[in-house]
Amino acid sequence: MQYIHHEDMRAWDRFFRVHFINSLSGFKSASLLGTSSGSGRFNLAIFSNLVHIGADPALIGFINRPREAAPHTLANIEASGYYTINHITEGIVRQAHQTSAKYGEDISEFEAVGLQPQVRGTFPAPYVSESQVQYGMRLEEVVPLRQNGTFLVIGAVEEVWLAEGLCLPDGFLDLERAGSITSLGVDAYYQTRLVTRLSYARPGQEARPIL
Amino acid sequence: MQYIHHEDMRAWDRFFRVHFINSLSGFKSASLLGTSSGSGRFNLAIFSNLVHIGADPALIGFINRPREAAPHTLANIEASGYYTINHITEGIVRQAHQTSAKYGEDISEFEAVGLQPQVRGTFPAPYVSESQVQYGMRLEEVVPLRQNGTFLVIGAVEEVWLAEGLCLPDGFLDLERAGSITSLGVDAYYQTRLVTRLSYARPGQEARPIL
Repeated sequence: MQYIHHEDMRAWDRFFRVHFINSLSGFKSASLLGTSSGSGRFNLAIFSNLVHIGADPALIGFINRPREAAPHTLANIEASGYYTINHITEGIVRQAHQTSAKYGEDISEFEAVGLQPQVRGTFPAPYVSESQVQYGMRLEEVVPLRQNGTFLVIGAVEEVWLAEGLCLPDGFLDLERAGSITSLGVDAYYQTRLVTRLSYARPGQEARPIL
Repeated sequence: MQYIHHEDMRAWDRFFRVHFINSLSGFKSASLLGTSSGSGRFNLAIFSNLVHIGADPALIGFINRPREAAPHTLANIEASGYYTINHITEGIVRQAHQTSAKYGEDISEFEAVGLQPQVRGTFPAPYVSESQVQYGMRLEEVVPLRQNGTFLVIGAVEEVWLAEGLCLPDGFLDLERAGSITSLGVDAYYQTRLVTRLSYARPGQEARPIL
Protein backbone atom coordinates (compact mmCIF):
# COMPACT_ATOMS: atom_id res chain seq x y z
CA MET A 1 0.00 0.00 0.00
CA GLN A 2 0.96 3.62 -0.41
CA TYR A 3 1.95 5.36 2.84
CA ILE A 4 1.56 9.08 3.54
CA HIS A 5 2.71 10.72 6.77
CA HIS A 6 1.17 14.01 7.93
CA GLU A 7 4.47 15.81 7.44
CA ASP A 8 4.36 14.82 3.78
CA MET A 9 0.92 16.47 3.51
CA ARG A 10 2.17 19.77 4.91
CA ALA A 11 4.79 19.89 2.17
CA TRP A 12 2.30 19.32 -0.65
CA ASP A 13 1.03 21.94 -3.08
CA ARG A 14 -2.09 23.54 -1.59
CA PHE A 15 -4.51 22.31 -4.27
CA PHE A 16 -3.14 18.77 -4.19
CA ARG A 17 -3.72 18.72 -0.44
CA VAL A 18 -7.25 20.15 -0.82
CA HIS A 19 -8.20 17.41 -3.32
CA PHE A 20 -6.62 14.66 -1.24
CA ILE A 21 -8.00 15.54 2.19
CA ASN A 22 -11.44 16.46 0.84
CA SER A 23 -11.77 13.01 -0.72
CA LEU A 24 -10.14 11.02 2.10
CA SER A 25 -13.20 11.18 4.36
CA GLY A 26 -15.41 9.72 1.63
CA PHE A 27 -18.67 10.49 -0.13
CA LYS A 28 -20.71 13.52 0.95
CA SER A 29 -24.20 14.90 0.44
CA ALA A 30 -23.53 18.16 -1.42
CA SER A 31 -26.70 20.27 -1.27
CA LEU A 32 -27.84 23.78 -2.15
CA LEU A 33 -28.48 26.19 0.74
CA GLY A 34 -31.01 28.92 0.04
CA THR A 35 -31.14 32.08 2.15
CA SER A 36 -32.64 35.56 2.00
CA SER A 37 -30.62 38.71 2.75
CA GLY A 38 -31.97 41.54 4.88
CA SER A 39 -32.87 43.43 1.71
CA GLY A 40 -34.75 40.42 0.36
CA ARG A 41 -32.14 39.23 -2.16
CA PHE A 42 -32.02 35.44 -2.56
CA ASN A 43 -28.67 33.73 -2.03
CA LEU A 44 -27.83 30.18 -3.13
CA ALA A 45 -24.66 28.24 -2.35
CA ILE A 46 -23.45 24.66 -2.58
CA PHE A 47 -22.27 23.10 0.68
CA SER A 48 -20.93 19.58 0.78
CA ASN A 49 -20.04 19.05 4.42
CA LEU A 50 -23.43 18.23 5.92
CA VAL A 51 -23.84 15.90 8.89
CA HIS A 52 -26.79 14.20 10.58
CA ILE A 53 -26.84 15.11 14.29
CA GLY A 54 -30.06 13.59 15.60
CA ALA A 55 -33.57 12.41 14.71
CA ASP A 56 -35.56 13.55 17.78
CA PRO A 57 -35.34 16.49 17.75
CA ALA A 58 -34.46 16.45 14.03
CA LEU A 59 -31.07 18.18 13.79
CA ILE A 60 -28.71 18.54 10.83
CA GLY A 61 -25.40 20.41 10.80
CA PHE A 62 -22.99 21.71 8.22
CA ILE A 63 -19.44 23.04 8.28
CA ASN A 64 -19.07 26.66 7.19
CA ARG A 65 -15.60 27.84 6.23
CA PRO A 66 -14.06 30.88 7.98
CA ARG A 67 -16.19 34.01 7.58
CA GLU A 68 -13.82 35.76 5.17
CA ALA A 69 -13.90 32.75 2.81
CA ALA A 70 -17.67 32.16 2.81
CA PRO A 71 -19.54 35.13 4.28
CA HIS A 72 -22.96 35.49 2.61
CA THR A 73 -24.85 32.34 3.52
CA LEU A 74 -23.77 32.42 7.17
CA ALA A 75 -24.57 36.14 7.54
CA ASN A 76 -28.03 35.61 6.05
CA ILE A 77 -28.69 32.65 8.33
CA GLU A 78 -27.62 34.58 11.41
CA ALA A 79 -29.71 37.61 10.44
CA SER A 80 -32.90 35.77 9.46
CA GLY A 81 -32.63 32.56 11.50
CA TYR A 82 -33.78 30.40 8.58
CA TYR A 83 -32.42 28.58 5.52
CA THR A 84 -33.40 25.85 3.10
CA ILE A 85 -31.44 22.75 2.07
CA ASN A 86 -32.13 21.31 -1.38
CA HIS A 87 -30.87 18.06 -2.91
CA ILE A 88 -28.99 18.13 -6.22
CA THR A 89 -29.90 15.83 -9.10
CA GLU A 90 -27.78 15.00 -12.17
CA GLY A 91 -29.80 17.50 -14.26
CA ILE A 92 -28.69 20.49 -12.16
CA VAL A 93 -25.14 19.47 -11.22
CA ARG A 94 -23.52 22.16 -13.38
CA GLN A 95 -25.73 24.95 -12.03
CA ALA A 96 -25.19 23.72 -8.47
CA HIS A 97 -21.40 23.64 -8.89
CA GLN A 98 -21.47 27.11 -10.48
CA THR A 99 -22.96 28.60 -7.27
CA SER A 100 -19.48 28.14 -5.75
CA ALA A 101 -18.13 31.00 -7.93
CA LYS A 102 -17.46 34.15 -5.92
CA TYR A 103 -20.35 36.36 -7.05
CA GLY A 104 -20.67 39.83 -5.52
CA GLU A 105 -23.10 40.52 -2.71
CA ASP A 106 -25.50 42.29 -5.11
CA ILE A 107 -25.95 39.23 -7.34
CA SER A 108 -28.43 36.40 -6.75
CA GLU A 109 -26.85 33.05 -7.60
CA PHE A 110 -30.32 31.79 -8.58
CA GLU A 111 -30.31 34.17 -11.54
CA ALA A 112 -26.59 33.87 -12.24
CA VAL A 113 -26.64 30.06 -12.61
CA GLY A 114 -30.21 29.61 -13.86
CA LEU A 115 -32.11 27.93 -11.04
CA GLN A 116 -35.64 28.87 -10.02
CA PRO A 117 -36.26 30.16 -6.48
CA GLN A 118 -39.49 28.82 -5.00
CA VAL A 119 -41.00 30.89 -2.23
CA ARG A 120 -43.68 29.23 -0.15
CA GLY A 121 -46.03 30.82 2.34
CA THR A 122 -44.93 28.22 4.87
CA PHE A 123 -41.30 29.32 5.12
CA PRO A 124 -39.16 32.51 5.15
CA ALA A 125 -36.31 31.34 2.85
CA PRO A 126 -36.28 30.34 -0.84
CA TYR A 127 -36.29 26.72 -1.99
CA VAL A 128 -34.83 25.45 -5.27
CA SER A 129 -37.78 24.63 -7.50
CA GLU A 130 -35.84 21.99 -9.49
CA SER A 131 -34.99 20.00 -6.35
CA GLN A 132 -36.83 16.74 -5.54
CA VAL A 133 -36.02 16.87 -1.82
CA GLN A 134 -36.26 20.25 -0.07
CA TYR A 135 -36.28 21.00 3.63
CA GLY A 136 -36.55 24.14 5.70
CA MET A 137 -34.19 24.72 8.63
CA ARG A 138 -34.33 26.94 11.71
CA LEU A 139 -30.93 27.97 13.10
CA GLU A 140 -30.15 26.44 16.49
CA GLU A 141 -26.53 27.40 17.07
CA VAL A 142 -23.32 28.43 15.33
CA VAL A 143 -20.49 26.57 17.05
CA PRO A 144 -17.01 28.01 16.33
CA LEU A 145 -14.30 25.37 15.89
CA ARG A 146 -11.09 26.75 17.33
CA GLN A 147 -8.79 24.45 15.35
CA ASN A 148 -9.20 26.27 12.03
CA GLY A 149 -11.76 29.09 12.26
CA THR A 150 -14.60 27.07 10.71
CA PHE A 151 -18.08 26.71 12.23
CA LEU A 152 -20.47 23.87 12.85
CA VAL A 153 -23.87 25.36 12.03
CA ILE A 154 -26.63 23.36 13.76
CA GLY A 155 -30.23 23.64 12.58
CA ALA A 156 -33.59 22.05 13.35
CA VAL A 157 -35.75 20.63 10.56
CA GLU A 158 -38.92 22.75 10.39
CA GLU A 159 -40.60 21.29 7.31
CA VAL A 160 -39.93 18.97 4.36
CA TRP A 161 -41.09 18.99 0.74
CA LEU A 162 -40.65 15.71 -1.14
CA ALA A 163 -41.43 14.55 -4.65
CA GLU A 164 -44.23 11.95 -4.47
CA GLY A 165 -43.27 8.31 -3.96
CA LEU A 166 -39.85 8.84 -2.35
CA CYS A 167 -40.83 7.98 1.24
CA LEU A 168 -41.03 4.20 1.69
CA PRO A 169 -43.45 2.60 4.18
CA ASP A 170 -40.79 2.46 6.94
CA GLY A 171 -39.80 6.13 6.58
CA PHE A 172 -36.66 5.53 4.49
CA LEU A 173 -36.23 7.97 1.60
CA ASP A 174 -35.40 6.36 -1.76
CA LEU A 175 -32.81 8.92 -2.84
CA GLU A 176 -31.51 6.70 -5.65
CA ARG A 177 -34.97 7.00 -7.19
CA ALA A 178 -34.99 10.77 -6.47
CA GLY A 179 -31.71 10.98 -8.37
CA SER A 180 -29.98 12.81 -5.51
CA ILE A 181 -26.25 12.86 -6.22
CA THR A 182 -23.44 12.23 -3.77
CA SER A 183 -20.24 14.26 -4.03
CA LEU A 184 -16.55 13.64 -3.44
CA GLY A 185 -13.71 16.06 -2.92
CA VAL A 186 -14.49 19.58 -4.08
CA ASP A 187 -15.58 18.89 -7.66
CA ALA A 188 -16.84 15.33 -8.26
CA TYR A 189 -20.49 14.23 -8.42
CA TYR A 190 -21.83 10.67 -8.46
CA GLN A 191 -25.01 8.70 -9.00
CA THR A 192 -25.70 5.76 -6.67
CA ARG A 193 -26.79 2.12 -7.00
CA LEU A 194 -28.16 0.22 -4.00
CA VAL A 195 -26.00 -2.66 -2.77
CA THR A 196 -28.27 -3.70 0.10
CA ARG A 197 -30.28 -2.61 3.10
CA LEU A 198 -29.64 -4.74 6.19
CA SER A 199 -31.85 -5.45 9.19
CA TYR A 200 -31.01 -4.21 12.70
CA ALA A 201 -27.83 -5.96 13.87
CA ARG A 202 -27.86 -8.12 17.01
CA PRO A 203 -25.01 -10.14 18.56
CA GLY A 204 -24.97 -13.74 17.31
CA GLN A 205 -27.55 -13.10 14.52
CA GLU A 206 -26.72 -12.45 10.92
CA ALA A 207 -28.44 -9.31 9.62
CA ARG A 208 -30.83 -10.02 6.74
CA PRO A 209 -31.28 -7.99 3.56
CA ILE A 210 -34.39 -5.78 3.70
CA LEU A 211 -36.41 -6.11 0.50
CA MET B 1 -45.15 17.41 -3.61
CA GLN B 2 -45.56 15.77 -0.24
CA TYR B 3 -45.47 18.18 2.74
CA ILE B 4 -44.33 17.29 6.24
CA HIS B 5 -44.37 19.73 9.13
CA HIS B 6 -42.09 19.22 12.16
CA GLU B 7 -45.09 18.61 14.40
CA ASP B 8 -46.02 15.67 12.17
CA MET B 9 -42.54 14.23 12.75
CA ARG B 10 -42.84 14.39 16.53
CA ALA B 11 -46.01 12.29 16.29
CA TRP B 12 -44.40 9.55 14.17
CA ASP B 13 -43.35 6.13 15.38
CA ARG B 14 -39.76 6.33 16.62
CA PHE B 15 -38.29 3.99 13.98
CA PHE B 16 -40.15 5.68 11.13
CA ARG B 17 -38.67 9.01 12.28
CA VAL B 18 -35.16 7.54 12.57
CA HIS B 19 -35.30 6.21 8.99
CA PHE B 20 -36.76 9.43 7.62
CA ILE B 21 -34.46 11.96 9.29
CA ASN B 22 -31.35 9.83 8.82
CA SER B 23 -31.96 9.73 5.07
CA LEU B 24 -33.16 13.33 4.66
CA SER B 25 -29.67 14.83 4.86
CA GLY B 26 -28.45 12.57 2.05
CA PHE B 27 -25.63 10.14 1.34
CA LYS B 28 -22.93 9.59 3.96
CA SER B 29 -19.49 8.02 4.20
CA ALA B 30 -20.04 5.18 6.64
CA SER B 31 -16.65 3.94 7.84
CA LEU B 32 -15.19 1.59 10.42
CA LEU B 33 -13.50 3.15 13.47
CA GLY B 34 -10.81 1.03 15.08
CA THR B 35 -9.67 1.65 18.65
CA SER B 36 -7.72 -0.07 21.37
CA SER B 37 -8.96 -0.31 24.96
CA GLY B 38 -6.71 0.28 27.96
CA SER B 39 -6.30 -3.48 28.36
CA GLY B 40 -5.32 -3.84 24.70
CA ARG B 41 -8.60 -5.23 23.36
CA PHE B 42 -9.42 -4.05 19.83
CA ASN B 43 -12.77 -2.37 19.28
CA LEU B 44 -14.41 -1.83 15.88
CA ALA B 45 -17.57 0.16 15.16
CA ILE B 46 -19.37 1.55 12.12
CA PHE B 47 -19.95 5.31 12.15
CA SER B 48 -21.78 7.01 9.32
CA ASN B 49 -21.83 10.66 10.34
CA LEU B 50 -18.37 11.80 9.32
CA VAL B 51 -17.64 15.33 8.17
CA HIS B 52 -14.68 17.05 6.51
CA ILE B 53 -13.58 20.03 8.63
CA GLY B 54 -10.45 21.32 6.93
CA ALA B 55 -7.49 20.41 4.71
CA ASP B 56 -4.67 22.42 6.36
CA PRO B 57 -4.41 21.27 9.05
CA ALA B 58 -6.13 18.07 7.91
CA LEU B 59 -9.16 17.69 10.22
CA ILE B 60 -12.07 15.26 10.06
CA GLY B 61 -14.94 15.03 12.52
CA PHE B 62 -17.66 12.56 13.39
CA ILE B 63 -20.83 12.67 15.45
CA ASN B 64 -20.87 10.33 18.44
CA ARG B 65 -24.24 9.53 20.01
CA PRO B 66 -24.81 10.17 23.73
CA ARG B 67 -22.38 8.21 25.92
CA GLU B 68 -24.94 5.74 27.24
CA ALA B 69 -25.90 4.78 23.65
CA ALA B 70 -22.39 4.42 22.21
CA PRO B 71 -19.78 4.26 24.96
CA HIS B 72 -16.85 2.05 23.87
CA THR B 73 -15.32 3.82 20.88
CA LEU B 74 -15.45 7.25 22.49
CA ALA B 75 -14.02 5.99 25.79
CA ASN B 76 -11.13 4.29 23.97
CA ILE B 77 -10.42 7.43 21.93
CA GLU B 78 -10.40 9.61 25.03
CA ALA B 79 -8.16 7.18 26.92
CA SER B 80 -5.63 6.54 24.15
CA GLY B 81 -5.91 9.70 22.02
CA TYR B 82 -5.85 7.72 18.78
CA TYR B 83 -8.19 5.88 16.38
CA THR B 84 -8.27 4.62 12.81
CA ILE B 85 -10.90 5.22 10.13
CA ASN B 86 -11.30 2.56 7.44
CA HIS B 87 -13.40 2.67 4.27
CA ILE B 88 -15.98 -0.05 3.63
CA THR B 89 -16.18 -1.90 0.31
CA GLU B 90 -19.06 -4.00 -1.01
CA GLY B 91 -17.25 -7.19 0.01
CA ILE B 92 -17.32 -6.31 3.72
CA VAL B 93 -20.67 -4.48 3.99
CA ARG B 94 -22.30 -7.24 6.05
CA GLN B 95 -19.41 -7.47 8.51
CA ALA B 96 -19.26 -3.68 8.79
CA HIS B 97 -23.00 -3.42 9.49
CA GLN B 98 -22.75 -6.23 12.04
CA THR B 99 -20.32 -4.17 14.16
CA SER B 100 -23.35 -2.04 15.12
CA ALA B 101 -24.71 -4.92 17.25
CA LYS B 102 -24.36 -4.26 20.98
CA TYR B 103 -21.52 -6.59 21.89
CA GLY B 104 -20.29 -6.63 25.48
CA GLU B 105 -17.17 -4.77 26.50
CA ASP B 106 -15.19 -8.02 26.70
CA ILE B 107 -15.77 -8.89 23.03
CA SER B 108 -13.71 -7.64 20.08
CA GLU B 109 -15.97 -6.84 17.13
CA PHE B 110 -13.08 -7.78 14.82
CA GLU B 111 -13.43 -11.42 15.95
CA ALA B 112 -17.20 -11.32 16.32
CA VAL B 113 -17.85 -10.18 12.73
CA GLY B 114 -14.81 -11.70 11.01
CA LEU B 115 -12.58 -8.80 10.02
CA GLN B 116 -8.81 -8.80 10.39
CA PRO B 117 -7.15 -6.21 12.63
CA GLN B 118 -3.92 -4.86 11.18
CA VAL B 119 -1.47 -3.42 13.66
CA ARG B 120 1.33 -1.32 12.26
CA GLY B 121 4.43 -0.06 14.02
CA THR B 122 3.57 3.43 12.82
CA PHE B 123 0.32 3.82 14.76
CA PRO B 124 -1.20 2.92 18.17
CA ALA B 125 -4.67 1.76 16.99
CA PRO B 126 -5.74 -1.17 14.80
CA TYR B 127 -6.59 -0.79 11.12
CA VAL B 128 -8.99 -3.03 9.16
CA SER B 129 -6.83 -5.18 6.92
CA GLU B 130 -9.59 -5.63 4.29
CA SER B 131 -9.98 -1.87 3.81
CA GLN B 132 -8.54 -0.16 0.70
CA VAL B 133 -8.40 3.30 2.32
CA GLN B 134 -7.20 3.50 5.94
CA TYR B 135 -6.18 6.55 7.92
CA GLY B 136 -4.92 7.15 11.43
CA MET B 137 -6.38 9.95 13.56
CA ARG B 138 -5.14 11.83 16.63
CA LEU B 139 -7.88 13.22 18.87
CA GLU B 140 -8.05 17.02 18.86
CA GLU B 141 -11.24 17.75 20.80
CA VAL B 142 -14.55 16.27 21.90
CA VAL B 143 -17.16 19.03 21.50
CA PRO B 144 -20.43 18.37 23.38
CA LEU B 145 -23.55 19.46 21.48
CA ARG B 146 -26.05 20.75 24.02
CA GLN B 147 -29.10 20.22 21.79
CA ASN B 148 -29.21 16.43 22.17
CA GLY B 149 -26.25 15.11 24.18
CA THR B 150 -24.23 14.05 21.13
CA PHE B 151 -20.60 15.00 20.50
CA LEU B 152 -18.62 16.30 17.57
CA VAL B 153 -15.32 14.44 17.81
CA ILE B 154 -12.59 16.33 15.95
CA GLY B 155 -9.39 14.58 14.92
CA ALA B 156 -6.24 15.36 12.94
CA VAL B 157 -5.07 13.04 10.15
CA GLU B 158 -1.75 11.55 11.25
CA GLU B 159 -1.11 9.08 8.43
CA VAL B 160 -2.83 7.43 5.47
CA TRP B 161 -2.58 3.96 3.93
CA LEU B 162 -4.00 3.61 0.41
CA ALA B 163 -4.27 0.77 -2.08
CA GLU B 164 -1.97 1.53 -5.04
CA GLY B 165 -3.36 3.59 -7.90
CA LEU B 166 -6.15 5.39 -6.02
CA CYS B 167 -4.49 8.80 -5.78
CA LEU B 168 -4.80 10.69 -9.09
CA PRO B 169 -2.13 13.19 -10.23
CA ASP B 170 -4.05 16.15 -8.74
CA GLY B 171 -4.50 14.54 -5.31
CA PHE B 172 -8.10 13.38 -5.84
CA LEU B 173 -8.81 9.87 -4.55
CA ASP B 174 -10.68 7.61 -6.98
CA LEU B 175 -13.00 6.03 -4.42
CA GLU B 176 -15.28 4.57 -7.11
CA ARG B 177 -12.28 2.50 -8.22
CA ALA B 178 -11.49 1.68 -4.58
CA GLY B 179 -15.06 0.40 -4.26
CA SER B 180 -15.73 2.54 -1.17
CA ILE B 181 -19.44 2.48 -0.47
CA THR B 182 -21.66 5.40 0.50
CA SER B 183 -24.45 4.87 3.00
CA LEU B 184 -27.94 6.24 3.52
CA GLY B 185 -30.15 6.21 6.59
CA VAL B 186 -29.13 3.65 9.18
CA ASP B 187 -29.06 0.51 7.04
CA ALA B 188 -28.55 1.16 3.29
CA TYR B 189 -25.27 0.87 1.37
CA TYR B 190 -24.60 2.04 -2.19
CA GLN B 191 -21.99 1.81 -4.94
CA THR B 192 -21.25 4.96 -6.92
CA ARG B 193 -20.86 5.92 -10.59
CA LEU B 194 -19.14 9.16 -11.60
CA VAL B 195 -21.36 11.76 -13.26
CA THR B 196 -18.67 14.40 -13.72
CA ARG B 197 -15.84 16.36 -12.15
CA LEU B 198 -16.05 20.09 -12.85
CA SER B 199 -13.32 22.74 -12.96
CA TYR B 200 -13.08 25.56 -10.39
CA ALA B 201 -16.13 27.83 -10.80
CA ARG B 202 -15.68 31.53 -11.66
CA PRO B 203 -18.38 34.16 -12.27
CA GLY B 204 -19.29 34.47 -15.94
CA GLN B 205 -17.39 31.30 -16.97
CA GLU B 206 -18.95 27.89 -17.43
CA ALA B 207 -17.09 25.21 -15.46
CA ARG B 208 -15.61 22.49 -17.71
CA PRO B 209 -15.62 18.74 -17.12
CA ILE B 210 -12.27 17.49 -15.80
CA LEU B 211 -11.13 14.42 -17.70
